[in-house]
Amino acid sequence: MPELRKDPLTNRWVIISTERAKRPDEFLEITPDQDAAALEECPFCAGNEIKTAPEITALRPAGGAPNSPGWSVRVIPSVAPVLRIEGSLEQKSDGVHSAVSGIGAHELVIETPHHIRSLWNLPDEQIRSVIQAYIQRIVDLERDPRFKYVMLFKNYGKAAGEGRFRHSRSQLIALPITPIRLRDELGGSRLYFQMKQRCIFCDIIRQESETQERIAAETASFVALAPFASRFPFEVWILPKNHSSDFTRMPPPQQSDLATILKITLGKLCAALGDPPLNYILHTAPFRRPHPGYWQTIDNDFHWHLEIMPRLTRVAGFEWGSGFYINPITPEETARFLRRAVFPLPPEPRPQQPVTEEGKNG
Amino acid sequence: MPELRKDPLTNRWVIISTERAKRPDEFLEITPDQDAAALEECPFCAGNEIKTAPEITALRPAGGAPNSPGWSVRVIPSVAPVLRIEGSLEQKSDGVHSAVSGIGAHELVIETPHHIRSLWNLPDEQIRSVIQAYIQRIVDLERDPRFKYVMLFKNYGKAAGEGRFRHSRSQLIALPITPIRLRDELGGSRLYFQMKQRCIFCDIIRQESETQERIAAETASFVALAPFASRFPFEVWILPKNHSSDFTRMPPPQQSDLATILKITLGKLCAALGDPPLNYILHTAPFRRPHPGYWQTIDNDFHWHLEIMPRLTRVAGFEWGSGFYINPITPEETARFLRRAVFPLPPEPRPQQPVTEEGKNG
Repeated sequence: MPELRKDPLTNRWVIISTERAKRPDEFLEITPDQDAAALEECPFCAGNEIKTAPEITALRPAGGAPNSPGWSVRVIPSVAPVLRIEGSLEQKSDGVHSAVSGIGAHELVIETPHHIRSLWNLPDEQIRSVIQAYIQRIVDLERDPRFKYVMLFKNYGKAAGEGRFRHSRSQLIALPITPIRLRDELGGSRLYFQMKQRCIFCDIIRQESETQERIAAETASFVALAPFASRFPFEVWILPKNHSSDFTRMPPPQQSDLATILKITLGKLCAALGDPPLNYILHTAPFRRPHPGYWQTIDNDFHWHLEIMPRLTRVAGFEWGSGFYINPITPEETARFLRRAVFPLPPEPRPQQPVTEEGKNG
Repeated sequence: MPELRKDPLTNRWVIISTERAKRPDEFLEITPDQDAAALEECPFCAGNEIKTAPEITALRPAGGAPNSPGWSVRVIPSVAPVLRIEGSLEQKSDGVHSAVSGIGAHELVIETPHHIRSLWNLPDEQIRSVIQAYIQRIVDLERDPRFKYVMLFKNYGKAAGEGRFRHSRSQLIALPITPIRLRDELGGSRLYFQMKQRCIFCDIIRQESETQERIAAETASFVALAPFASRFPFEVWILPKNHSSDFTRMPPPQQSDLATILKITLGKLCAALGDPPLNYILHTAPFRRPHPGYWQTIDNDFHWHLEIMPRLTRVAGFEWGSGFYINPITPEETARFLRRAVFPLPPEPRPQQPVTEEGKNG
């Protein structure tokens, strides 16, 4: 059973996920940088549904039975979950130490039935379906009273933690605890709201839109900007221009628009940097649990956003130890560079697999 | 001029260090995993003093002129400093954004005149000299009123950020701002002290010494333990058993003892994990600036320690986005494994360089 442990000093939480444990001497194994679909059938491709655990849900525009082809987006449980879905949430404590049983959900969102590596090579309409699946899963997981937050993220490329098969997908982890990085943002935005009666994100968007210095791309409803204090080179955040704390409450027309700016931003990063490894992660309001008054504040002061982080530099001892990041590129240069980057790219072919992805996408 | 920028949301700081900037297309360059000393003379070896900037200080047990051989530990400015030593500390602000001029010191501590890769392969007496040099530099940098903290760290192995030459060294970065990760620890320990009138680290040491479950190694004055909420597999912290907030005030006998436990702990990690890449970083009390009453609190409630983090797993989107770490090994297993690990290792030969380090240290 995995365990969530709290650092007594900083309130940072850690998942001790022994079920994925490797033997101590297995840690330095080298995973090949090649698509395993060159050697064996990709379990995420349409037609191979039987190679995965039964699906949690799937978008099936033309109907069809679960776990059969015909889906456009498919959600399955992770084959190596970091938390377990079964069990009750139990607190443990021993002197200075606190822990909670490692209850949670860990799901994969398979973003296309075809063996395509990059989300931004999918048609806008397909990316919109992916966004619908994200929303649907978060809304569904909110019904489970054990969970406080769903972390949605993408690991793209080996250096960003992508697995063996290069088939476009994202992950969701439902947690019984609101993650510290989100709590830091909630705390900072609440403090700002208390001082100014305004959302700090709205103020940032207003200021950045005036100077345009750090704006990388823009659509009717969204802005993609390089944050003033970017931690990583080419870090870009996508934010809705109109105030909204909650990703899942996005009106349908905005969903299409988010698909567009996501495609443009990721496509520009791919074009500009030669298909870099990257992570993106969603920060949205945590689930509305107890304290209803508190939620009204969050709805006023928090503003959901997607943080995109290309993985180009190595984070070393200094960053781990200090929380101080070293970024060798100014966000102004990042924005300038991305504004100039040419997109759309030529479309990625849709091969029948097995196939190698080697040499694709630059 | 580098710039320190503050994230308006979380108060996290970032160093925008444009002087190290690479062109956007240069980021994915592959640095070879081979010691550059195989190809060219190592600038850190005795006799090659002319290949570095003039030394800041050196320990010369038998005397001798600066920048000549005869030293046992030598401190030089970084050839690629992330912060600049010259200039005055200026605040800037623009709407929601705040920045500070990128003033600081960035130094290398060369830990041996010989081309030896690993600190733990040096004699105890030499490691003690390294500790003396650490203390001497931090005390000296404290005299500069622009600085609030010195971050001392080691990047060992390519995946941990080590440079081209595999010659044992550490780094110091003096900062005009106390890093957020330290402030989190200071805040947490103050809160605990306010509640219990006891140091949280002393309580942790007491509790861990009773169960022994997470103790990896021990000497008269120090304990090496796997923290209850370890972020990384085989993370180990070294703490003085007697309460002390300030690394630089360590009495001389403890310096020898620290050399011993550092050698044992790093040596055991090397033996157990096959010479893994690792970082260590020092967390000690920040410099005593204004507010003298405040410093009395820190002296009571903070407890210096060295955090050692082998770099065995990849940190992916989930960790960056949540601040939630996933650790596949329990700290109890880490401690058990390290207690069993055999040390000392056979000594590393002291070659004349140029020489290749390939295949050494397992």
